[in-house]
Amino acid sequence: MARNNRQVIFKARPTGWVDDSHFELRNGEAGTPGDGEVLIRNLYMSVDPYMRGRMREGKSYTAGFELGEVMQAGMVGKVIESRDANLPEGTYVSGMLGWEEYSVASGKAVMKVDPKLAPLSYYLGVLGMPGMTAWYGLTQIGKPKEGETVYVSAASGAVGQVVGQIAKIKGCRVTGSVGDDDKLNYILNELGFDAGFNYKTVDSYGAGLRECCPDGIDVYFENVGGEMLDAVLARINPFARIVACGMISQYNLENPEGVKNLMAMVGNRVLMQGFIVSDHFDMMPQFHQEMAGWIGEGKIKYRETVTQGIDNAPAAFIGMLKGENFGKAVVQIAED
Amino acid sequence: MARNNRQVIFKARPTGWVDDSHFELRNGEAGTPGDGEVLIRNLYMSVDPYMRGRMREGKSYTAGFELGEVMQAGMVGKVIESRDANLPEGTYVSGMLGWEEYSVASGKAVMKVDPKLAPLSYYLGVLGMPGMTAWYGLTQIGKPKEGETVYVSAASGAVGQVVGQIAKIKGCRVTGSVGDDDKLNYILNELGFDAGFNYKTVDSYGAGLRECCPDGIDVYFENVGGEMLDAVLARINPFARIVACGMISQYNLENPEGVKNLMAMVGNRVLMQGFIVSDHFDMMPQFHQEMAGWIGEGKIKYRETVTQGIDNAPAAFIGMLKGENFGKAVVQIAED
Repeated sequence: MARNNRQVIFKARPTGWVDDSHFELRNGEAGTPGDGEVLIRNLYMSVDPYMRGRMREGKSYTAGFELGEVMQAGMVGKVIESRDANLPEGTYVSGMLGWEEYSVASGKAVMKVDPKLAPLSYYLGVLGMPGMTAWYGLTQIGKPKEGETVYVSAASGAVGQVVGQIAKIKGCRVTGSVGDDDKLNYILNELGFDAGFNYKTVDSYGAGLRECCPDGIDVYFENVGGEMLDAVLARINPFARIVACGMISQYNLENPEGVKNLMAMVGNRVLMQGFIVSDHFDMMPQFHQEMAGWIGEGKIKYRETVTQGIDNAPAAFIGMLKGENFGKAVVQIAED
Repeated sequence: MARNNRQVIFKARPTGWVDDSHFELRNGEAGTPGDGEVLIRNLYMSVDPYMRGRMREGKSYTAGFELGEVMQAGMVGKVIESRDANLPEGTYVSGMLGWEEYSVASGKAVMKVDPKLAPLSYYLGVLGMPGMTAWYGLTQIGKPKEGETVYVSAASGAVGQVVGQIAKIKGCRVTGSVGDDDKLNYILNELGFDAGFNYKTVDSYGAGLRECCPDGIDVYFENVGGEMLDAVLARINPFARIVACGMISQYNLENPEGVKNLMAMVGNRVLMQGFIVSDHFDMMPQFHQEMAGWIGEGKIKYRETVTQGIDNAPAAFIGMLKGENFGKAVVQIAED
């Protein structure tokens, strides 16, 4: 008898803000692994800003979600039935799987993870795609030099908190913005940022940046877009680099905010570079080695918001888009 | 008795469009060269979009023009009195000099030019800063590959016409936009562009681009900014490069147009890079060699609008900002 399998289905395409009506909870059945496949008990699921892009019709950088199908997410789970000799029962793995309690996957489509090195959920964050996004974007595009000012928006988020701490390791003056005072306290007093501001309470983004970045901005790690990017361009330094990682402030707007200060890019010889971390998975071993080292030395701290239960996955996703999470947003689907 | 020297003075700082009231014509006196200096009879003067930036208060990428002082421009002239043994009387030189009939300059601040290689005015254009801007921006930032689609705005301008022809030499599909039908005819039938449109008569920039660039845009050589950049971003290809050379459509606007489609940069991993050609003058020998070769082989055609007389320099500059010139805008100050 097949196991009951709670699943989250992509029900309707949002045009503005995402809400519960765009998802449907369903009782499915767990599949049976074929040759070379494994059945995985899902434990932790990632909710990330890029998923909003996959809900859009038309071109996105990953294939769009299909209406009527199970939503997809980065997942960590445990193999409970195996027809792949490399992944015996009890192996912990990560991969792109469904928003569901059980998934069947090809053994080649998942990666072993080591529960001794770090808590399992870290493989969705600081040791997973967000961590590698921070690491790749900052070190390969931002290329911060000692003494430079690095500014990161969404600074307490899954990517932002890692960006800031790597920039500190590189000897930079590190500044960031967040959406509430607890998060501000966290980046300043726990992560060691040199300055920061709550973008919801400053007189203007420009005023916040003026105070935090008196010498201008050399590297901007862009997570929010729109007006914030405009304010950064007004304080950008010659030869600055803008790491275009995401623009979360714009994802739910039908009519995005216009950015007016792009002329500053010419005069200041600014580089802006968009990137998708999955293009660079060949660098994953280098990332893992460096990041695991920093975590081991206590140089990287890491914070998560954990929501309980697959039924609450849509709420966790919606809350993350609204900035309600504190640190990396994950959903715990089951106890190990 | 000192020679009378007609000069153009920077009289008032413009906030919107530049007009005659921002300049003053004056009868000055030609100076006398000191040790190591030369007196130059100015022959051809360049008017360029970047000068609008130097009329602005605050940061620009070159020092701002000073109110009450003589305006500055790229100039070609002839040495008529010399106290620099390297530059005997009769030598032709180019350099940054005043908007005036005669200039005194340090011999080290000017460069010899060869009137046998090309007409003297070419040293203000295809063999000067605009030509090197096109060459550097396209080859070092745009890096077009054979078969890619290159789109250049202001395509018949000093920079644009050279960009398009180099892109053809590199084996690209080359497209461009211009502001009237004569210019369109010129880029299509004389310069060999594959497609183009008159941005003033298309239904929308998007419609013009859709027709000209059915396979999207791989390299955008950005001369105009604002709405045009937005339309390009809507058709941008994965891994495209945007060469941010200038944004002439925005220079005279007090409130620049907002660019809404920057999110496309993330998903498509687009690189946008601002640059100033004078940062790269170490590459000038390479540029001169390559460009002189192409001109010699007839692979690069070049068109100018020549305005007569120093008194008409402000009008030539204002007309260029409005797009009234056809090809490189220069002012002939004197016959050789």
